[in-house]
Amino acid sequence: MKKSIWLMLVLVLSLGLSGMVSADDGKVYRWKLAETWGPNFPIFGDATKNMAKMVKEMSNGRFIIRIDSSNKHKSPLGIFDFVKSGQYQMGHSGSYYWKGKNFNTLFFTTVPFGMTAPEQYAWFYHGGGMELMKKVYDQYGILSFPGGNTGNQMGGWFKKEINSVDDLKGLKMRIPGFAGEVLAKLGAKPTNIPPGELYTALERNTIDALEWVGPSLDLRMGFHKIAPYYYTGWHEPGAELQFMVNEKAYNKLPKDLQVILTVAMKTAAYDMYVQSYHESALNLATIVEDYPNVKMRSFPEPVMSAIKATNASLLKEFAAKDPMTAEILKSLTEYQTKARAWTNLSDRAYLETSDKK
Amino acid sequence: MKKSIWLMLVLVLSLGLSGMVSADDGKVYRWKLAETWGPNFPIFGDATKNMAKMVKEMSNGRFIIRIDSSNKHKSPLGIFDFVKSGQYQMGHSGSYYWKGKNFNTLFFTTVPFGMTAPEQYAWFYHGGGMELMKKVYDQYGILSFPGGNTGNQMGGWFKKEINSVDDLKGLKMRIPGFAGEVLAKLGAKPTNIPPGELYTALERNTIDALEWVGPSLDLRMGFHKIAPYYYTGWHEPGAELQFMVNEKAYNKLPKDLQVILTVAMKTAAYDMYVQSYHESALNLATIVEDYPNVKMRSFPEPVMSAIKATNASLLKEFAAKDPMTAEILKSLTEYQTKARAWTNLSDRAYLETSDKK
Repeated sequence: MKKSIWLMLVLVLSLGLSGMVSADDGKVYRWKLAETWGPNFPIFGDATKNMAKMVKEMSNGRFIIRIDSSNKHKSPLGIFDFVKSGQYQMGHSGSYYWKGKNFNTLFFTTVPFGMTAPEQYAWFYHGGGMELMKKVYDQYGILSFPGGNTGNQMGGWFKKEINSVDDLKGLKMRIPGFAGEVLAKLGAKPTNIPPGELYTALERNTIDALEWVGPSLDLRMGFHKIAPYYYTGWHEPGAELQFMVNEKAYNKLPKDLQVILTVAMKTAAYDMYVQSYHESALNLATIVEDYPNVKMRSFPEPVMSAIKATNASLLKEFAAKDPMTAEILKSLTEYQTKARAWTNLSDRAYLETSDKK
Repeated sequence: MKKSIWLMLVLVLSLGLSGMVSADDGKVYRWKLAETWGPNFPIFGDATKNMAKMVKEMSNGRFIIRIDSSNKHKSPLGIFDFVKSGQYQMGHSGSYYWKGKNFNTLFFTTVPFGMTAPEQYAWFYHGGGMELMKKVYDQYGILSFPGGNTGNQMGGWFKKEINSVDDLKGLKMRIPGFAGEVLAKLGAKPTNIPPGELYTALERNTIDALEWVGPSLDLRMGFHKIAPYYYTGWHEPGAELQFMVNEKAYNKLPKDLQVILTVAMKTAAYDMYVQSYHESALNLATIVEDYPNVKMRSFPEPVMSAIKATNASLLKEFAAKDPMTAEILKSLTEYQTKARAWTNLSDRAYLETSDKK
């Protein structure tokens, strides 16, 4: 009797298995994602929700990702360590926030005078960008992926017009990252201030200027009420956010869920670029209509040239210090030259057939 | 004994079932996709392969899509009818190929002086574009989705330089679609010629000029050897290909496979835009390096203005004929105004900080 029951068991199981093509092991994978952003943060927070929703629906509930915003985990800039340790299987943040840990992480977000979003996506997926990012993150057991592009960021809100390089001297500006270092070389006093304190700092003249993102996210901050000059961008031409995944956790997923996760992250990143474009267009129209006193400006050519030259020499300094930095910068620069020639011949030439307004 | 075996069976099956959350019905869904392109057609054909691969892997083999190229189904422009009838569950083509069946399908690919790819994706997904496309395709039982963007297409290869509107008169040019009708109004003689005969037609002066796509696909056609002037684009600023799905077939899929299919199509479309960008950048560099005799030009301002005015009045004519055309054009125009204001303030202003080369 025992034998026949076992035979039957084997028969049932193997029939079951042979009829199935699914890797479905009956298990529900539950992950946690920590994001830098607060709860209901627009656009950036939509990217993580969009990703988790796709994963849940495509896996038919076999893979559930819970999102913890900064109010929950209390450590907006702790995402790297959360994912590295495995405390969280996933994170959503910005690669350039980790430049204190490893300077080379900076280059996978954006660089001043770097590539626009489509140019940069082409570099990531066809020009060696993903491979270089893997090389930088491998040592931490972290897989890093594009996490959503803000599009071209605005140069910021200024209380006074910038007419010459001299106007930058002593200028107290909230501008973090590499761009801040560039402006410092030209005599400005860059600082970083938490988002919640930005409006007050600008209002009380603690700072003279600040950059945030662009119309997509600036409008709700109210800066247009206290700083009339809105400058076009140069410092973050296509800032890409970042999904991070703990490598060990990833390796424990069945193959189909690995692909589902990878595709969902990629799609959510592209989607965020498109959503940013939309929100920027909408909010810019609102600014123009409802706040006609806002003056749109670009730095005059001599100012832009000085910033560009300073940026180039700073990058050269860093490349000389570290072979990996040199390798990444070589790849970025060579790719940008080719991609920009195409942008100039295509979109730029085309845009010049239309009025500027 | 029999009883204990049945008990065991029930036990095993119910354990198995209760542990499962999958909609996996053990069934393998096998679909066929017909594409306009020949086998191994670059970029466009990569989009369908990319989509089918994602579907297969994300469904763990439960959903297999076979791709038939034009050599198999023998009807490159029969895709619409194949999908409508259900002979094929899916198709990959270009919406503007169906303007003979329904003029309004035209607007979901591109229009002369219309939106760039990011502007247009924002319109599709946030500005009402998907809803309008659904309205146009619903009556045929076809679901239509973005299927990959070529990026800004080049204005074409010309044997002689175009210096005035007079130079367009009598010009025999292969340029299909709406742009051809615009040029015809200005005295040109637009024709359509199958891709395989284009080189010979240009070589033997059957035509004086032709447009194809851009560096991404033009280089392998050899036009640069026989027509030295390569003009920048105005007629297809962001041509979007199209995935079509038979609605009844779609409705028979389990929910998770519906989402898997939708996400895979969306991602493959974005991916094609990025791949086109890359191939264009690479091939443009080759043209500049290996074929220095190719002269890049833009139509002079008076020519561009005449084309633009003719285009606008033609569009107005069509809008007056059909309320649906009017509705779509209103949506397109209003969205483009907002999106372009943002493009001008962001990418255009930024690109102007860099040299044109």
